[in-house]
Amino acid sequence: MNFHARQDKLREYLATTRFDALLISHLPNIRYLCGFTGNAGFLLIEDSGSSVFFTDARYDEQAHEEVKTAKVVIAREAVVKSVAGWLGKRRRRARGWDIAVEAEHFTLADKERLNDLLPGGTRLKSALGRVEKLRMIKDEEELERIRAAVKLGASLFNRTLEVVRPGVKEVEVAAEMELAARKAGADEMSFPTIIASGPRSALPHGRASDQPIKPGGFVVCDFGVILAGYCSDQTRTVWVGAVQKEAQQVYEAVREAQQAATDAVRPGVRVSEVDHAARKVLIERGLARYFTHSTGHGVGLEIHEAPRVAKGQKEILQPGMVITIEPGVYFPGKWGVRIEDMVAVTEGGCEVLTPTGKDFLAVSSS
Amino acid sequence: MNFHARQDKLREYLATTRFDALLISHLPNIRYLCGFTGNAGFLLIEDSGSSVFFTDARYDEQAHEEVKTAKVVIAREAVVKSVAGWLGKRRRRARGWDIAVEAEHFTLADKERLNDLLPGGTRLKSALGRVEKLRMIKDEEELERIRAAVKLGASLFNRTLEVVRPGVKEVEVAAEMELAARKAGADEMSFPTIIASGPRSALPHGRASDQPIKPGGFVVCDFGVILAGYCSDQTRTVWVGAVQKEAQQVYEAVREAQQAATDAVRPGVRVSEVDHAARKVLIERGLARYFTHSTGHGVGLEIHEAPRVAKGQKEILQPGMVITIEPGVYFPGKWGVRIEDMVAVTEGGCEVLTPTGKDFLAVSSS
Repeated sequence: MNFHARQDKLREYLATTRFDALLISHLPNIRYLCGFTGNAGFLLIEDSGSSVFFTDARYDEQAHEEVKTAKVVIAREAVVKSVAGWLGKRRRRARGWDIAVEAEHFTLADKERLNDLLPGGTRLKSALGRVEKLRMIKDEEELERIRAAVKLGASLFNRTLEVVRPGVKEVEVAAEMELAARKAGADEMSFPTIIASGPRSALPHGRASDQPIKPGGFVVCDFGVILAGYCSDQTRTVWVGAVQKEAQQVYEAVREAQQAATDAVRPGVRVSEVDHAARKVLIERGLARYFTHSTGHGVGLEIHEAPRVAKGQKEILQPGMVITIEPGVYFPGKWGVRIEDMVAVTEGGCEVLTPTGKDFLAVSSS
Repeated sequence: MNFHARQDKLREYLATTRFDALLISHLPNIRYLCGFTGNAGFLLIEDSGSSVFFTDARYDEQAHEEVKTAKVVIAREAVVKSVAGWLGKRRRRARGWDIAVEAEHFTLADKERLNDLLPGGTRLKSALGRVEKLRMIKDEEELERIRAAVKLGASLFNRTLEVVRPGVKEVEVAAEMELAARKAGADEMSFPTIIASGPRSALPHGRASDQPIKPGGFVVCDFGVILAGYCSDQTRTVWVGAVQKEAQQVYEAVREAQQAATDAVRPGVRVSEVDHAARKVLIERGLARYFTHSTGHGVGLEIHEAPRVAKGQKEILQPGMVITIEPGVYFPGKWGVRIEDMVAVTEGGCEVLTPTGKDFLAVSSS
């Protein structure tokens, strides 16, 4: 990964501000900027060109192994003390030292603790989403990792189809998929697997429960893995039991909405237009009021990243963005359908990353 | 769960401060105080006796079903707007309205966003760990849930012993345990399962890797489940291959340290004394410098809670606290041993919750 280039982009931003440095505390942002994969640390990016990564003794070996594009400082006591000590030494006496912190991730307690340790003239300021903005545009290495994660994730659906049957519990389906993920080499699941059957399929976030799957309803399967740090996210919905015409019609409507939104993805388009493309199909079918969430979200080192693909959102699609397209229709108390792929924005339009077919599928006891 | 009693305890605290209300944003704290298990919301506890829970439309049904001890407000737009609107209406015009927020969980961006929406005279103040302090002492219902989680968690180790063999990958062991957890009805694992073999057993936080287990080393197995919201946490270490005398000696030293710390647990004792009891045994064996972490931590709705059982920590044990006792000895590049139980502080001493035996166990290919 080109950590130098990423840090340089942040420095370009710093040059446009009055901040002297940016203190990164959000772990996915730290990983993005210097490669550290552990669970504690701060990365200081100074406008002057130096980068310093602070962590504690547990990560001594790991930090030195992973972090080649920043000076590594191992704190003897609390890491925050080590950061404050460093900032104290570096302080520009002339006019003080303005340090931007990540306002979306830095807590009031973090700020109070660090402020108490800082010398006078060093001020903490809020910066919003600077690293997240860079992370929206994936580079070629990231796209390769995302493709690999999506491919592995998609393979789990083969296992789903083997085990989804009337009488099988939702959690058993989830467990078999998670076992398959582990065996295929996934780091872990990117979120708790959703296997939601019958009336539970109408809950957009119904986790797998103890409930046995019954015939005469849909099963929404929403799942993903993390591979080499990058997430996958996919949903398929299968019918269980004797096929009902209404179920097939609603499924096809969601599929068309999903296709329409995918067709709308290309550079220069607003994310709200992608959302609208899905919604428009469902408006025409009289189903729009059952589509109760937004169409999608960015995916990368985190399962939910910028941009949000939703009504009112103004972000413009650019090559390198990776988003989900996941419209759904939910009839409360009855059943629901959601179909979700991941797509990457390309120069000419988009690359659908998820390879799994989307034909209506029904499974039965036999 | 007695949510009224918990909220009343917070009101007793509020009465000792100049705060007019406490705005709870940390989800485990919200669950503890009103029973909501979803992923978005704010709970406002006013000193005047009213409690209001704010969430969004996705959780309409769930919030009304789960939350009986607070008024439920479903936000039409952003939840934070709904909170600000409510506070605006309730403002005490006489001297303004001081709202305490959870400084350990409220970000600078949260504060800026809410401040922008609040009417003049309403001020946000920092409060530290008030709910966490209540959560340290578990009531009888919580202890019952924790016992059930620990029992289920402990049952996974039977599966470990069936599958740990030379040549089997660490991730396969983890996957089989996680499948067993799901089948036994666990909500999910309480943290990513650690199966660390050979030299990796010397990494206190070595996650399960793709590496096949080799004879001639330990396998550290650190795992836990969440059941009905409450976490379990347990470690057992098994030897693989022909038994070596040094391995057995170090294992017995860790076991004695673990027992000594457990024996030290009773009301009125400082947590640092429990830590020291384990350390003392290892000092006598010349192994103390290989015990590189603290002895334990509280467990409950979260896998790591107060109190920390560590050197320099001053918390006094009280009946109802639930902590881990988990000393370890790690020889870098060679192997490591850790043994961990969960214990509950009782009036007379402690109840060891983890039922699994701690005899030295060796498995081989046969």
